[in-house]
Amino acid sequence: MNKFNKKIPYGVIERLPAYLNCLMQLKKESVTTVSSKRLGRLTGINAAQIRRDLIYFGKFGIRGVGYEVHTLIKKIQDILGADKFHNIVVIGAGNLGAAISNHDGLKNHGFIVKAIFDNNKEKVGREINDIEISDLSDLKKVINEEKIKIGILATPSEAARKSAKALIDEGVRVILNYTSIIIEAPKDVIVYNSDPVSDLLYTLYYFTSKKSM
Amino acid sequence: MNKFNKKIPYGVIERLPAYLNCLMQLKKESVTTVSSKRLGRLTGINAAQIRRDLIYFGKFGIRGVGYEVHTLIKKIQDILGADKFHNIVVIGAGNLGAAISNHDGLKNHGFIVKAIFDNNKEKVGREINDIEISDLSDLKKVINEEKIKIGILATPSEAARKSAKALIDEGVRVILNYTSIIIEAPKDVIVYNSDPVSDLLYTLYYFTSKKSM
Repeated sequence: MNKFNKKIPYGVIERLPAYLNCLMQLKKESVTTVSSKRLGRLTGINAAQIRRDLIYFGKFGIRGVGYEVHTLIKKIQDILGADKFHNIVVIGAGNLGAAISNHDGLKNHGFIVKAIFDNNKEKVGREINDIEISDLSDLKKVINEEKIKIGILATPSEAARKSAKALIDEGVRVILNYTSIIIEAPKDVIVYNSDPVSDLLYTLYYFTSKKSM
Repeated sequence: MNKFNKKIPYGVIERLPAYLNCLMQLKKESVTTVSSKRLGRLTGINAAQIRRDLIYFGKFGIRGVGYEVHTLIKKIQDILGADKFHNIVVIGAGNLGAAISNHDGLKNHGFIVKAIFDNNKEKVGREINDIEISDLSDLKKVINEEKIKIGILATPSEAARKSAKALIDEGVRVILNYTSIIIEAPKDVIVYNSDPVSDLLYTLYYFTSKKSM
């Protein structure tokens, strides 16, 4: 996917989604160019850091004017592989699973929730955001039929490991883990731990140290 | 808060919560030392990156043995300011607000949800995780009485900007924004945008490019 010669560091890739979200909102508001300073204010990322990050994708900022919103969106989507549709499944039809499945951002970025699974028979058959809640026992069938490679883990903690194992066993290769449980996975599976508290801890540093971000 | 002489880069701080979460789970499982390799497998962060990051906090890894879990937890908590209790408020008592308020991780890291606000009169007075849902019109009172400096934004998109403004006007200095709306804030307010899709986009890069994380 990455057509650029330079190896893009981990940290840069990690910041790209923030730039992308912000740029897409600017585009929606008919903004055509944006300075690194404004992008910095909007994303909470240091403007100098933004300029350094974007150098990896070629020189396309114009001094005194900034970056072309449309061009920059395309470049970042291309790098991330976010210019295609991706089918995903969500495990857990509780508040967290419902919140994620309902989130505007998913559709904006081409993620299509094909199924939401739960083992609570009372929830099975109901709908969240027009997606029917399926019985966890149908996981294998759905993943294989829909060729799902991306799964979101939004179960209670005690069900996290078992659910992750089920996803991995059926061939899911990317797991976004919203539980507070750490998942050990084989080398060819990417697990990204994303619990809400990590974000809070991170902001805390800048807050308590009175540093600017 | 940061008692270390070296300036710790943005990217390092951003990864500390992931290390901390992982270490706390290891501690719970009575693990006393951990290698950068294992920490890498658990967090999904490259082991070499982990070693480079932890050098900022002094030489306390032991070659061939790894890091002392307990010591490393203390150091990271100290750096992040996560060794104290922090009162927070959540705006939005929908699925997202409920999921965040219920999350194990909050209590584990000393975050205490003092109130959850909503403008839906039908929700006001009900409880989420033993916390009563308050009317949004009481925001000012609660923030001032409890001296709240940290707020979580978990409203529907259309209410995001107005709610953020209310938090800022009452003196909240850290906003964790879970909506897909970008919030512009004064310089002395830290807004950290954390929508679930950013994480998905980020993992996508490693998935589509078949790179290891």
